[in-house]
Amino acid sequence: MTNNELLEKLDFKKNNGLIPVVVQDAKTKEILMQAYANKQAVELTLKTLKATYWSRSRNELWVKGETSGHTQKVISVATDCDFDSIMYVVEQTGPACHTGEYSCFFNRIL
Amino acid sequence: MTNNELLEKLDFKKNNGLIPVVVQDAKTKEILMQAYANKQAVELTLKTLKATYWSRSRNELWVKGETSGHTQKVISVATDCDFDSIMYVVEQTGPACHTGEYSCFFNRIL
Repeated sequence: MTNNELLEKLDFKKNNGLIPVVVQDAKTKEILMQAYANKQAVELTLKTLKATYWSRSRNELWVKGETSGHTQKVISVATDCDFDSIMYVVEQTGPACHTGEYSCFFNRIL
Repeated sequence: MTNNELLEKLDFKKNNGLIPVVVQDAKTKEILMQAYANKQAVELTLKTLKATYWSRSRNELWVKGETSGHTQKVISVATDCDFDSIMYVVEQTGPACHTGEYSCFFNRIL
């Protein structure tokens, strides 16, 4: 499939127009965060190479780092076997988490 | 916070009782898949160390590899800054994807 065909196959219907985005650090391979994107956010990400999401709390498009400066330059994007999840591999500037932690997944349960 | 307090803080309300699970290979650090868990699936995962999910298509608990043999031994579990996403770091036996691919994220868009 071409990239455009893959983009059209993304399944935004299962979850009210949003798909989960898993974000990985291109250098360390650590998982930095998990957010959501609508179709426009994915298209903007592919076009601008700036990781773009849909903020569920603010109900608006969210270009990561636009306010904080902690931007994510997108290196690669892939979708999964059933097209209902997407992965951004990024070069992270500064911490990924709004708390100042490097990754959002800092609460160890096990 | 204790592990039990963290478990109680997991926010299953935002998404109809389910939270996204990001699954990472403990050895290669590649992202293997993204699935969903309800509270019981997380509790079983912590107790058995077998990665357990909620299957949205079958509407039932799903112990990864129970049928295929492609099990995931859970090495660590963490939740994110706002407790609405969870990460399993696993030792994967065989391919993670039902298609036979190593990772579900094999459809490169960029």
